[in-house]
Amino acid sequence: MTTTPLSPTQRTTIGRGRNRMVEDRTELHRLLDDALIAHLGVIVGGHPLVLPVAFAVDLDGPDEDGTLYLHGSVAAGWLRSSADATVCVTITELEGLVAARSAFHHSMNYRSAVVIGTARIVEDPAERRRALGLTVDHMIPGRDATLREPTRKELAATAVLAVPLHEASMKSRGEGPVDDQEDIDAGVWGGVIPLRRVAGDPVAADDATGPAPADVVRRAASL
Amino acid sequence: MTTTPLSPTQRTTIGRGRNRMVEDRTELHRLLDDALIAHLGVIVGGHPLVLPVAFAVDLDGPDEDGTLYLHGSVAAGWLRSSADATVCVTITELEGLVAARSAFHHSMNYRSAVVIGTARIVEDPAERRRALGLTVDHMIPGRDATLREPTRKELAATAVLAVPLHEASMKSRGEGPVDDQEDIDAGVWGGVIPLRRVAGDPVAADDATGPAPADVVRRAASL
Repeated sequence: MTTTPLSPTQRTTIGRGRNRMVEDRTELHRLLDDALIAHLGVIVGGHPLVLPVAFAVDLDGPDEDGTLYLHGSVAAGWLRSSADATVCVTITELEGLVAARSAFHHSMNYRSAVVIGTARIVEDPAERRRALGLTVDHMIPGRDATLREPTRKELAATAVLAVPLHEASMKSRGEGPVDDQEDIDAGVWGGVIPLRRVAGDPVAADDATGPAPADVVRRAASL
Repeated sequence: MTTTPLSPTQRTTIGRGRNRMVEDRTELHRLLDDALIAHLGVIVGGHPLVLPVAFAVDLDGPDEDGTLYLHGSVAAGWLRSSADATVCVTITELEGLVAARSAFHHSMNYRSAVVIGTARIVEDPAERRRALGLTVDHMIPGRDATLREPTRKELAATAVLAVPLHEASMKSRGEGPVDDQEDIDAGVWGGVIPLRRVAGDPVAADDATGPAPADVVRRAASL
């Protein structure tokens, strides 16, 4: 794996808000670790369509800088629309509401990455198996190894889209409000409401027996 | 305001996973209340671009079924690309990780809405002022009324995109794993890790004086 800096192309070069630009690729990897869903943008019937998808990252995948795998159903229309087309995958973690002293300066704290690339439908069963395992482990680390092997029929019904992790940009905001001095002097309060995602205790299915396994308990405790 | 059922057009008719389809428009309104960001999809340079944006809803807005307002900077490229174009706005709340008994049946619990429509740049200063206030109040209900009026310069630098809330579809999954009977019989554990967003205590800016105001405290307590 090489380590191309972020924003390597014009279309992933950030125009607005360059002060929020992140250039360190390890920050992208950290965001991809933390996020649980991505929003995939494709063009369908001449207009954009944006859908939430499960994803996984393989930094040792076939593409330079790693591969992003998006998981869907073979029957899903977005998948057919994406084959060999340029797609956009956006991953956002919202981290705070920024209560400024004026409406104009209200903002949010977040980390967000935009990945643009040519989507490839993963045809090779071994790569598809690997991507499915990575997707399960992205949700609940370690879980894939505790489950039976997918059947050939299941793998045939699993559709995976691969997008190179090469063309990517990232922005991050993580600070208090940026206000006009007059508003600060006027004594208006400014600050941040921090936001985070938490997990509740695992809820067993009605037909489940025994306690939740270690991987599930560990995952719930980590969120 | 009328109450058109959801998925009124072919392009917002759900193909895959019709069992997850939500037809009640009040459920869409509830999701839009709960969500804090949207992902806007536009076509730029022939490829899709997906960006996270702050938003607000005006059910009494100029469009049938209400208006979705997206907030940006006048300098943002996506805004220019969106004027009078068909855009897609997707709003997703992730609510659980579904740990099934097989890799194939792993899933997520979520609510997600897709709104497709022709974007309009809001030119009227009064509508822009109203949209800015609604966006602030969507983040922190009641806050806009506590702040000074935006200046003419601030309003000129605020860009707002309006998208009719008419053409929308919604999906929801909120249940345990759907597993094969053999895997259940094999005694593998299945269940859900519930997820939710929580707020920490408000963090005052370094230059803030006094306690956080009621609207901020109330908002932090409500998340």
